[in-house]
Amino acid sequence: MRDFLPADVRKREYVIGIIKEVYERYGFEPLETPAVENIETLMGKYGEEGNQLIFKILKRGEHEKSGEADLALRYDLTVPLARVVAQYQNELPKFFKRYQIQPVWRADRPARGRFREFYQCDVDVLGSRSMIVEAELISAASDALEALGFNDFTIRVNHRNILTAVLNASNIPPAIHSAVLIGLDKYDKNPGSLTEAMANIGVPYESGLKFLTFLLENVTRFKDLVSRAQEAASRQIADATTVEELDVVDFSRLFMDANESLLDRIAGFTFPSLAAEKAIEDVRKVLQLAENRTKPRRVFLDLTLARGLSYYTGTIMEMNVADLPGSLGGGGRYDNLVGMFSKQSIPACGFSLGLERIITVMNERKMFPLSVVGSPADLMVASFDDESQPVAFTFAAELRAQGLRVLLHPESGNPGKHRVYARDRGIPFMIVIGENERQTGQLILVEPRIRGGQQLPKNEIVSAIRQRLEEKKKEREMEDKTFADAIKQERDKADQ
Amino acid sequence: MRDFLPADVRKREYVIGIIKEVYERYGFEPLETPAVENIETLMGKYGEEGNQLIFKILKRGEHEKSGEADLALRYDLTVPLARVVAQYQNELPKFFKRYQIQPVWRADRPARGRFREFYQCDVDVLGSRSMIVEAELISAASDALEALGFNDFTIRVNHRNILTAVLNASNIPPAIHSAVLIGLDKYDKNPGSLTEAMANIGVPYESGLKFLTFLLENVTRFKDLVSRAQEAASRQIADATTVEELDVVDFSRLFMDANESLLDRIAGFTFPSLAAEKAIEDVRKVLQLAENRTKPRRVFLDLTLARGLSYYTGTIMEMNVADLPGSLGGGGRYDNLVGMFSKQSIPACGFSLGLERIITVMNERKMFPLSVVGSPADLMVASFDDESQPVAFTFAAELRAQGLRVLLHPESGNPGKHRVYARDRGIPFMIVIGENERQTGQLILVEPRIRGGQQLPKNEIVSAIRQRLEEKKKEREMEDKTFADAIKQERDKADQ
Repeated sequence: MRDFLPADVRKREYVIGIIKEVYERYGFEPLETPAVENIETLMGKYGEEGNQLIFKILKRGEHEKSGEADLALRYDLTVPLARVVAQYQNELPKFFKRYQIQPVWRADRPARGRFREFYQCDVDVLGSRSMIVEAELISAASDALEALGFNDFTIRVNHRNILTAVLNASNIPPAIHSAVLIGLDKYDKNPGSLTEAMANIGVPYESGLKFLTFLLENVTRFKDLVSRAQEAASRQIADATTVEELDVVDFSRLFMDANESLLDRIAGFTFPSLAAEKAIEDVRKVLQLAENRTKPRRVFLDLTLARGLSYYTGTIMEMNVADLPGSLGGGGRYDNLVGMFSKQSIPACGFSLGLERIITVMNERKMFPLSVVGSPADLMVASFDDESQPVAFTFAAELRAQGLRVLLHPESGNPGKHRVYARDRGIPFMIVIGENERQTGQLILVEPRIRGGQQLPKNEIVSAIRQRLEEKKKEREMEDKTFADAIKQERDKADQ
Repeated sequence: MRDFLPADVRKREYVIGIIKEVYERYGFEPLETPAVENIETLMGKYGEEGNQLIFKILKRGEHEKSGEADLALRYDLTVPLARVVAQYQNELPKFFKRYQIQPVWRADRPARGRFREFYQCDVDVLGSRSMIVEAELISAASDALEALGFNDFTIRVNHRNILTAVLNASNIPPAIHSAVLIGLDKYDKNPGSLTEAMANIGVPYESGLKFLTFLLENVTRFKDLVSRAQEAASRQIADATTVEELDVVDFSRLFMDANESLLDRIAGFTFPSLAAEKAIEDVRKVLQLAENRTKPRRVFLDLTLARGLSYYTGTIMEMNVADLPGSLGGGGRYDNLVGMFSKQSIPACGFSLGLERIITVMNERKMFPLSVVGSPADLMVASFDDESQPVAFTFAAELRAQGLRVLLHPESGNPGKHRVYARDRGIPFMIVIGENERQTGQLILVEPRIRGGQQLPKNEIVSAIRQRLEEKKKEREMEDKTFADAIKQERDKADQ
């Protein structure tokens, strides 16, 4: 778990702000739940591994000695949502779109972009079985990633019922399906682990071979397509100066064709299975809708996508970039979860973006505009001597009332010392008040970075600062552009 | 601990947004720390009562069985700040202003405006012993409360060394000082509890009498002054239509005179005590600076203010309104806390506003503008039949790309059914796409609240909605004004 110093917080708020704005544009409404849930609410919802990774809270007071836990820290935002929907059924609309951006806690081993405390940015839709829901979730999460500057992510889709049907068609006994899926979930990071897991589970040789053959045949061609598309996208990012210039429509077409042919193969392989037929139809709709967007996407059906959590019942989805193991986000349909907290079952589907993973990649790729981490204030006001402190204090208050962000330095001192502090903190302007200033009402507006200053009467200070800040803002935008150009050149070089 | 449904979240975000903006105006920078701290970081920092109210987290994995805790939930934002400042000394500036708005957890008995999970909105200044710091904190927190619409709060100031000197001058043994202060801390809610506590602690009769006599003499006149000032302020709120019309300058003068005379009495009572002299001088500076603001405040020295937390070393402060037991916020100086985590001691002072208490009072006083809780979207798009779903999906995406907030209903259905949903959700516009719309490109822009609609070609929809939203915004502002007027009339009536 980490501390976030001011520059980090500003980056996080920048990302959260953009994601939130996109979610709001889709009509998702905000929800917040407590960090702490009753332990029974969480246990058994995430599979055996999940149970172990939940942080459990000791009973309080005289019961503390028992060593027992009755509460636990939120493990994801989906189970609390299901509890809320069951609990507030009469207050919430039948069809409910909500977003929730809050931390969750898992006692997992930390890795790059993975922490024990991390933020999930969730969108969920409750009350509909329409595949419009899945398509909208993909669309919203994609829009958010694109608004942040991502252009090379892929969107993988699969369906739990397709996986079940493929396992059945391979004659793998239902009792060990979930164990095979746990192995499959890790296939992406380490393909060998699946075969190993299957051997350990005791999958019959013939069945295992049938399953793996079907899987590998269909996965290989996609892997090739994906890496070609990602290469093309990163080349295009390097060439294009704006997002709008990017055009990956050809790959979109190739993906759609490949998706169609895979759906046909699955239909053949699993025939006759009504559940598979329905699932194939659903996935087809999702893929078509997701393609049928103003901007083409790299959406494809990936049979190796399994998703670890045990509550999924239908479609499952994930978004990935090549330079991060694991995903930027994922989700799926969980039509039975609300029913665990209520007599009434309510269909539901959701998608979650991982804030820390997004920030990790954005930092590494230098995707943050320089202006995100600004200065702590527009102006620093300080006093030369203790007698001037009340005047400096009131002056700072006056400027703030006019909308300036003013840092008042609490210690009296000479302008040279104050200048060093203001400069080191990146504060663009400084005014030091001493006896002279108090007597004459004339102030010296200093730019700490360049020494020297401009003498002005007190009542002209605000407009002078405003004007210079406006100029500086333009300079900063130029700097951001220069910075973006430099990144582009770096990429071009690396490509050669 | 509570769930926050969309309307609640929007209110919370409104309040947090205003507080943040005020804090930023003062040059405070954002910091975030994890919800979970090592248990040793927290234990022993809040006094014995605090130790018991900390939520403790069980060890994980094989150690879970031990029933031992190694982690704990954040109890306030001050101790984590002290840890951060000690830990990142080289990365942080010597003089550091930070704000932090995050939840904390206490296993306390819930009451009105008091919850087990609650948000603190903290500002702290590190690295200076100047009383400018205290005055700035009072000023920032007051500005935040005023920006939210509060005008009748009082600001109470005291100093731990003044309390110690008064206890010494009363011949109360130092060993039982802290026990007396705990009793004093509760005096405000229940004056009888102090005498009872003093009897239980075993304060010698003579000493107790001396202490109580001095205290009561000086407290009574303030209580009277405060209630008169609050009455006047609430009358003025009822009379004034804008905050600017309020003028409580007379009371400000009365407070200042009373403060001066109390400081003199304390000086006399505690003579000769160097610590008291210094503390009196400090408090005098704070009170003078806080008065020396563009807008007068109701700041006064209150000898009954003790503050529960054990880490305070100097000035202590609290802000109160008459209709809430407890405080809207409080703080003080804690010059030794950073030193507990580091060899180097760093002076520090902070103030914390309680989000939930502020919201409780704002709800009861109906201080939220109606427009805070808006509609989930500008427009709802829906489809009449399944064949129109892809068109509706793409259309929604196009409108969002042009900046509208669009809720796409995932189920096909007739316009009457869709209209009911949109109306009940308060969505101002609706478009349903069917075969006719697909063929002609002519859409009907419906206002669900009033039935009927306007036929428009597809490319004119955005500008039509924009125009009507602008008109509606003006209507809403009028509604807010009418609402505010109604509240005023209600108050006037209650006053008669």
